[in-house]
Amino acid sequence: MHVRQTLTLVLGGAASGKSAFAETLVMATGKPRVYLATAQAFDDEMRAKVDRHRDQRGPDWTTLEAPHDVAPALSGLHTDQVCLLDCATMWLSNRMLAEDDLATAQDKFLAALAGCAAELVVVSNEVGQGIVPDNALARRFRDAQGRLNIALAARSDRVIQVVAGLPLILKGAPL
Amino acid sequence: MHVRQTLTLVLGGAASGKSAFAETLVMATGKPRVYLATAQAFDDEMRAKVDRHRDQRGPDWTTLEAPHDVAPALSGLHTDQVCLLDCATMWLSNRMLAEDDLATAQDKFLAALAGCAAELVVVSNEVGQGIVPDNALARRFRDAQGRLNIALAARSDRVIQVVAGLPLILKGAPL
Amino acid sequence: MHVRQTLTLVLGGAASGKSAFAETLVMATGKPRVYLATAQAFDDEMRAKVDRHRDQRGPDWTTLEAPHDVAPALSGLHTDQVCLLDCATMWLSNRMLAEDDLATAQDKFLAALAGCAAELVVVSNEVGQGIVPDNALARRFRDAQGRLNIALAARSDRVIQVVAGLPLILKGAPL
Repeated sequence: MHVRQTLTLVLGGAASGKSAFAETLVMATGKPRVYLATAQAFDDEMRAKVDRHRDQRGPDWTTLEAPHDVAPALSGLHTDQVCLLDCATMWLSNRMLAEDDLATAQDKFLAALAGCAAELVVVSNEVGQGIVPDNALARRFRDAQGRLNIALAARSDRVIQVVAGLPLILKGAPL
Repeated sequence: MHVRQTLTLVLGGAASGKSAFAETLVMATGKPRVYLATAQAFDDEMRAKVDRHRDQRGPDWTTLEAPHDVAPALSGLHTDQVCLLDCATMWLSNRMLAEDDLATAQDKFLAALAGCAAELVVVSNEVGQGIVPDNALARRFRDAQGRLNIALAARSDRVIQVVAGLPLILKGAPL
Repeated sequence: MHVRQTLTLVLGGAASGKSAFAETLVMATGKPRVYLATAQAFDDEMRAKVDRHRDQRGPDWTTLEAPHDVAPALSGLHTDQVCLLDCATMWLSNRMLAEDDLATAQDKFLAALAGCAAELVVVSNEVGQGIVPDNALARRFRDAQGRLNIALAARSDRVIQVVAGLPLILKGAPL
């Protein structure tokens, strides 16, 4: 069995610079890098965002797509690689839209992370600091995202919150 | 007159792990513990949440309910006890739904905390970091919650923000 | 040419106490103070808020209004002054309602800040930590606000997040 690699959680609000910050963490490792995309581009707005992010990353990434099940992609990685999973929020949203049981889905997701041989950086959204949403689905998503973030943070070696592009260390060693 | 006990404010978003964290603070005191519940279970979603929280706490708590006026419950506590008030946001929401004047209600709430002989841990929500809500009632609640959090923080010996279950000290001694 | 003065960014949610905190920073400089207001009072709710803030500040401020173009006001300031720009979020909202190109508007805004001879304290909102808004305009605003905050933070000597009236230093020297 492999020695478990470092797991880093990068949390932030929408447009907080969390993905760009996570990419700098990945690049600083100097290891061959894998981008594990969870987004599904349903519409033009989303596709434009996905394309813009890919352009910003540049060509030195192997891109894998796993909107629903991250296990096959993660289990194929090697100990000398580093993987950026961007992001847990899109994955969770995809599972909710697929009407999956979210507690079971979370267990599988966490197991897939634990079974990955590569160093991991996982990006996730903070969605619970606004006013209570009107519709029940949004409230259910908010609670599921909160539970997932808590579970990810508990398993992470380092947790960093990004605010306006600036890092705030919530857990683990200083940068 | 009693010497004023420590007041701790635990702030966090929805599903941030703030209540669970506040419970660990309360349990660490080693004192007999009181849970002061402000929630009113109007519907099944809310009742399920209340029941789940009670199950998580376990039996070693005296539970008091005070959705509208916390003064009678707080004034009955003793200096050897520790009380978890969970949470200021539900209390404020109840007062708004009752069409109370919120500035007056806040003054009474703060006076009740100041008059309590027991050590206090108060949980409250951060609700102002999303987009501006469409409806005026939600904006009014957001402003009232912000003012209440500022007033509570000013009176607290320690203020802790919980993000993904992890504490960030905003005021007072390190953990 | 003047030596560039200090730029401080004060970030916070709605009703977080960010404006009051920014005012204490400005007053601590001991310099003649200018309040650069970006708000437009379209309705009674907004006018009441503007008036309340003005009353809280007191008379020892020169107030300038610049809801759309901050450059003329900023370029007229002197090196011995300190200016509180309150806030970048209202300015951005005004530009969006005017259907301006937001990337171009941001460039002009940042250039105006860079060209200002006075010490600057800029207040801005965190709006990206709630659930994804239903309407596209709100999502577009949220993204534009995020990009503006990242750009402001990168150019600032000090960035402070205010939570419940309490400061958290994200960048620069301790208080």
